[in-house]
Amino acid sequence: EIVAYLNKKVAEKQVLAGKKILVTAGPTQERIDPVRYLTNYSSGKMGYAIAEAAAQMGAEVTLISGPVSLATPNRVKRIDVESTKDMYQAVMDHFPSQDIVIKSAAVADYRPTIQANEKIKKQSEQMTIALEKTEDILKTLGQKKTSQFLVGFAAETTNVRQYGKKKLVEKNLDAIVINDVSKQGIGFGSDDNEVLILINDGSEIQINKTSKVAIARQLLTEISHRLEGEKQ
Amino acid sequence: EIVAYLNKKVAEKQVLAGKKILVTAGPTQERIDPVRYLTNYSSGKMGYAIAEAAAQMGAEVTLISGPVSLATPNRVKRIDVESTKDMYQAVMDHFPSQDIVIKSAAVADYRPTIQANEKIKKQSEQMTIALEKTEDILKTLGQKKTSQFLVGFAAETTNVRQYGKKKLVEKNLDAIVINDVSKQGIGFGSDDNEVLILINDGSEIQINKTSKVAIARQLLTEISHRLEGEKQ
Repeated sequence: EIVAYLNKKVAEKQVLAGKKILVTAGPTQERIDPVRYLTNYSSGKMGYAIAEAAAQMGAEVTLISGPVSLATPNRVKRIDVESTKDMYQAVMDHFPSQDIVIKSAAVADYRPTIQANEKIKKQSEQMTIALEKTEDILKTLGQKKTSQFLVGFAAETTNVRQYGKKKLVEKNLDAIVINDVSKQGIGFGSDDNEVLILINDGSEIQINKTSKVAIARQLLTEISHRLEGEKQ
Repeated sequence: EIVAYLNKKVAEKQVLAGKKILVTAGPTQERIDPVRYLTNYSSGKMGYAIAEAAAQMGAEVTLISGPVSLATPNRVKRIDVESTKDMYQAVMDHFPSQDIVIKSAAVADYRPTIQANEKIKKQSEQMTIALEKTEDILKTLGQKKTSQFLVGFAAETTNVRQYGKKKLVEKNLDAIVINDVSKQGIGFGSDDNEVLILINDGSEIQINKTSKVAIARQLLTEISHRLEGEKQ
């Protein structure tokens, strides 16, 4: 009942009415051969929570999603992709018309240099996989952005604040959501998270452990205030 | 209605009553660092269909499962594992008491030589991951088996019959289920499959495209005939 009440309360506000939001979510998969791939532990829950909350707050939401086991939130347009390259293309196609872009997907930053067309057979005791860097979607968006409010995510295990701050500046973001994925009970696969949001106006918002849905609402509320601020 | 009727018909037979069956299913995940891992496209659907059908046919079923998004079938004892090493341990613990062992899991055959405790940071344009062979669960079972009827799976993209036959002999299996994962609409993630079953008595059973549940029933029926045969 409390959740239903809060949902209603948020929905009543409609603070994102008329805004177009692009959200990315989930992991990407980088194929090694027709059987094997490289990926990461992202469940997509944080991104899906953002997409859902944004729709409830009145935004027109496009969700670009890696492979996940989650239902598409109501009134959200979902586009499924597999690799970082696919996600790069889908994001670039949709970026120009957006007001807010939230890159919560955990994209693979390396992919196999060669993707074998046939299953690689077991042979030697050791083997190596050669990797090359994937497209840096966030950096490209930071370079291309015009009026879009651009939010990145940093999933770190050490020096989380320092890496997050560096990413905010280097990639020309408007905000970054930092989470320490080494902590138990939050982050990957969990329904809860605990994050530090750094905003490029110098604000820092620490959100202690709570549901990803609650974090999504607070993040979007903070963003809506900044968009309001710009108008004045 | 037809499915319900067939379910009932199969259940009435109870041809596996009193038998203990161990089924493995799904992929394994091999951790690179706290964020990234190596895995494969196995959805676990084939193994879960076998576990479900075996329980319906009266068997006492233990299902050792890699990470999948599937519900545990009725009357099946499920044990969850992540890596090939975990699966090896769980299978060895349960193997001695079984009558039938069906290894439908697609276990990773290589794992990162080093599993980093902290997230590996992006640096150079290229990088390599060093891999080492994992435990060969099926081969070990072939060496250790006493009276167990041991069934392996082969997911191949080329020369499928040849590789399957080789695996049957080299790993001392009683039967092997071969599927060509390069074909569209069957295999990984699909509800359907198309397989060739080779049995070490020389029989070959080709099952054309049908549901994984139907394949599971036919496989188990063939096995039950062989177990009956031994008694005579």
